Amino acid sequence: MANDIEGFISHLGDIPVIRDSATVQRRSRDMSMSFSPIIRREASGKTAELIVSPRSQDDVIRIASAAARARMPLMMRGAGTCNLGQGVPLHGGAIVDMSGLSQVLWIREQKVRAQAGARLLAIDTATRATGWELRMHSSTRRAATIGGYIGGGHAGIGSCSYGILRDRGNILGLRVVSVEQTPRVVELRGDDVNLVHHAYGTNGIITEVEMPLAPAWAWVEVVLNFPGFMRAAAFAYELAASDGIVKKLISIDDFPNWDYMQAMRAYGKPGWSMVRCMVAAPGLEALRDLAAAFQGEIASEAGEGEGPYGAPLWEFGWGHARLQVNKTRPEIVNNIGLYLDPDLLAAVERSHRRFKDLGGMHLEVKRYAGRIAFQGSPYYAFVDDAQVAEVIRGMVQDGAMVANNHTFLVKDNGMKVADARDEEFKRSMDPHGLMNPGKFDADASRARPETGLELPTTGWQYGSDTQREPGAVSA
Amino acid sequence: MANDIEGFISHLGDIPVIRDSATVQRRSRDMSMSFSPIIRREASGKTAELIVSPRSQDDVIRIASAAARARMPLMMRGAGTCNLGQGVPLHGGAIVDMSGLSQVLWIREQKVRAQAGARLLAIDTATRATGWELRMHSSTRRAATIGGYIGGGHAGIGSCSYGILRDRGNILGLRVVSVEQTPRVVELRGDDVNLVHHAYGTNGIITEVEMPLAPAWAWVEVVLNFPGFMRAAAFAYELAASDGIVKKLISIDDFPNWDYMQAMRAYGKPGWSMVRCMVAAPGLEALRDLAAAFQGEIASEAGEGEGPYGAPLWEFGWGHARLQVNKTRPEIVNNIGLYLDPDLLAAVERSHRRFKDLGGMHLEVKRYAGRIAFQGSPYYAFVDDAQVAEVIRGMVQDGAMVANNHTFLVKDNGMKVADARDEEFKRSMDPHGLMNPGKFDADASRARPETGLELPTTGWQYGSDTQREPGAVSA
Repeated sequence: MANDIEGFISHLGDIPVIRDSATVQRRSRDMSMSFSPIIRREASGKTAELIVSPRSQDDVIRIASAAARARMPLMMRGAGTCNLGQGVPLHGGAIVDMSGLSQVLWIREQKVRAQAGARLLAIDTATRATGWELRMHSSTRRAATIGGYIGGGHAGIGSCSYGILRDRGNILGLRVVSVEQTPRVVELRGDDVNLVHHAYGTNGIITEVEMPLAPAWAWVEVVLNFPGFMRAAAFAYELAASDGIVKKLISIDDFPNWDYMQAMRAYGKPGWSMVRCMVAAPGLEALRDLAAAFQGEIASEAGEGEGPYGAPLWEFGWGHARLQVNKTRPEIVNNIGLYLDPDLLAAVERSHRRFKDLGGMHLEVKRYAGRIAFQGSPYYAFVDDAQVAEVIRGMVQDGAMVANNHTFLVKDNGMKVADARDEEFKRSMDPHGLMNPGKFDADASRARPETGLELPTTGWQYGSDTQREPGAVSA
Repeated sequence: MANDIEGFISHLGDIPVIRDSATVQRRSRDMSMSFSPIIRREASGKTAELIVSPRSQDDVIRIASAAARARMPLMMRGAGTCNLGQGVPLHGGAIVDMSGLSQVLWIREQKVRAQAGARLLAIDTATRATGWELRMHSSTRRAATIGGYIGGGHAGIGSCSYGILRDRGNILGLRVVSVEQTPRVVELRGDDVNLVHHAYGTNGIITEVEMPLAPAWAWVEVVLNFPGFMRAAAFAYELAASDGIVKKLISIDDFPNWDYMQAMRAYGKPGWSMVRCMVAAPGLEALRDLAAAFQGEIASEAGEGEGPYGAPLWEFGWGHARLQVNKTRPEIVNNIGLYLDPDLLAAVERSHRRFKDLGGMHLEVKRYAGRIAFQGSPYYAFVDDAQVAEVIRGMVQDGAMVANNHTFLVKDNGMKVADARDEEFKRSMDPHGLMNPGKFDADASRARPETGLELPTTGWQYGSDTQREPGAVSA
């Protein structure tokens, strides 16, 4: 059944519409195209039919109402910098380009409220003038929108101190518009924000976001080299455990990962492993002593964005580590495993040994349920789905929880908890099932989209059970 | 052999000296007299012979030189608010009252440098004007000096976020004067600061301290009640694990501990357990939701120092929890056990059950080697040494590491690592063994002071080994 494009447009008034098929096709893709050859393949032929560009909350309400009346599928879009296929429409319809709602509404009492389309860097630029900044951001900070980050993101630069977005207190409020003939505007606060966070924009249109701020430290970017991967990993662990050193980023790369990053080559030592971190300036002396205790050698110290490698160090971490590597080695892929205490370093070492002929481990440090966690996998040259499945199986055997970063389905991804309350909320905000249908359906019995994709991932558990029964997570 | 008081004084020039025996005797005692009946008994008859009051670093150097020449024992004193017998002289001599060196020297780049005798609250008052404050302070913040806190302290209000004083980065620099005929002025930085930290002022005279600062949040004091001790403990654990909620204090009291605190009585529920915490204002909504998830009821929310219980909430935590209880129940004592993950709550529950007829558990949350730890013990009415030993034995069986808070000897206390390097440093800074001799001797073969005190404590291990081999700590 074709979508009723003309009917939909007829309700939009003067809201800008783009129907040019090249543009629509381009915006029907996101950064996951370069992250997962599997998603790229699965996305083939999946495209939206038009783009609508709201300029205000009123426009959003009008679009939501129009979609409900015309039964038009909607796909939310910020900057398209996501890498889990969040921005791929499964059943055509209209892309809602939120970048026009870009105002920072207010900054006060260590909080910021912004429209969903405000870019992370724009928010940080505004808040830094008051001495504060977002607690965390994706490596796509320059381009990504706050709405996209909340809707499709998980953690990032800052997570080694503040945990992940879904941790209580890391998102203060969300304003969401339901997709109904008469749309409702709902303000979510407290625990309720997680109904919408990481739902890929499938249960209401986020129009405003309220976030807590962190001190805008004078960050120092430090690049260090260690004789041996496990020494680098152990150093990174100790740095994460050093509650007296304020930090924002800890990235670990076995050789030759960093050697694949052209801009980083001059700062590594062949055969050695690299740690790239950002610490608050008052902790620099402590960091140097800690590095020395692990036979680490400091290759570079620089203010944020002032390093000799030509980009902020956070553009060599998280998703951007892959992007940097892919510039010279486009065939390299990764998985997202979570290595947790009490067995963290031993589990990492098992994977390091298992995969050493396949590729070097890339890990990012974050806090997870109040404890230290390493997120990552080997970086390896993609062969086929079976190979990816084999790597995931090995990581699970080594003790990691592994999410699926090669699917664009919320539940299959395994990073979002989705219980009865989530399904009820989805039903109330999107009663006609128009928000990127197939991605996150309330009705579990609805036919699962055919993706041809089965990977042996475990998903991620959250919260205190994970914390207290570590044995359970690697089962 | 009597100390050469006249010879010592003859070298002091115009430095103020107090010889009045009542004053000298009073200042030969510290707050540990009210904390440990065992220390009180052991301290009997131990007193200094005079007090010297330096006004500058030059005075300190002169005193150090005079002591070396006259072989006069020295005992460092800040405000005498310590509670581990740090301020009890074992071999007479001169008390060095550091409270005259009270200047805050500079505040910049999220760091503060102050003379050793500056009071914690005075430092915080000065730094808060710039939006910053000390990362942690003792519950004796109003009276205690920064030099005393570094020399004799361990952790405190703030430790649930920043860990303990000895964690890398929590003390930036110390200036220390050696006790020699020609004293040296030594600046310690980085890891070296821990040579002097928690050495009870026995390896050099601290004259200046440089500390890192933390954001001076708008702290909200929250008093909560829970139906059942383990629910309170589990809530406290989750709050500690919530990296998205910025906090400074988490104190847990089983019934009837809080009922013994006159000012807190109106805010508890008979038979219920109480958690008292301080969170940064932006985290208040998240805290409320977290409390509700544990069936917690909020009895009071107030700005720092503005609660209806008549004192800042930090004066009901850490050492002050004991002081508040002792106002109505002077016979109550405690031990200092450390309950650690991965078995933290189970170990706490074992102690809770074991001691439930003896007294309610009092616990403070801190970070320890990068993970969550609860510090405390039951509050119980003192009978005799054998009873204290029995309680300690039970705590160790339950899985706690237990330090000895009923001794005034550094090594017996078990909270300070003292290896060959410490002994070498002690020898270089105090070659004549004049700094409170007997407390922390470089020469292990030197006769141990007779204290008649043997408790089955384990001491505390620090750092990564503790972290990675949790099984070892309760052995």
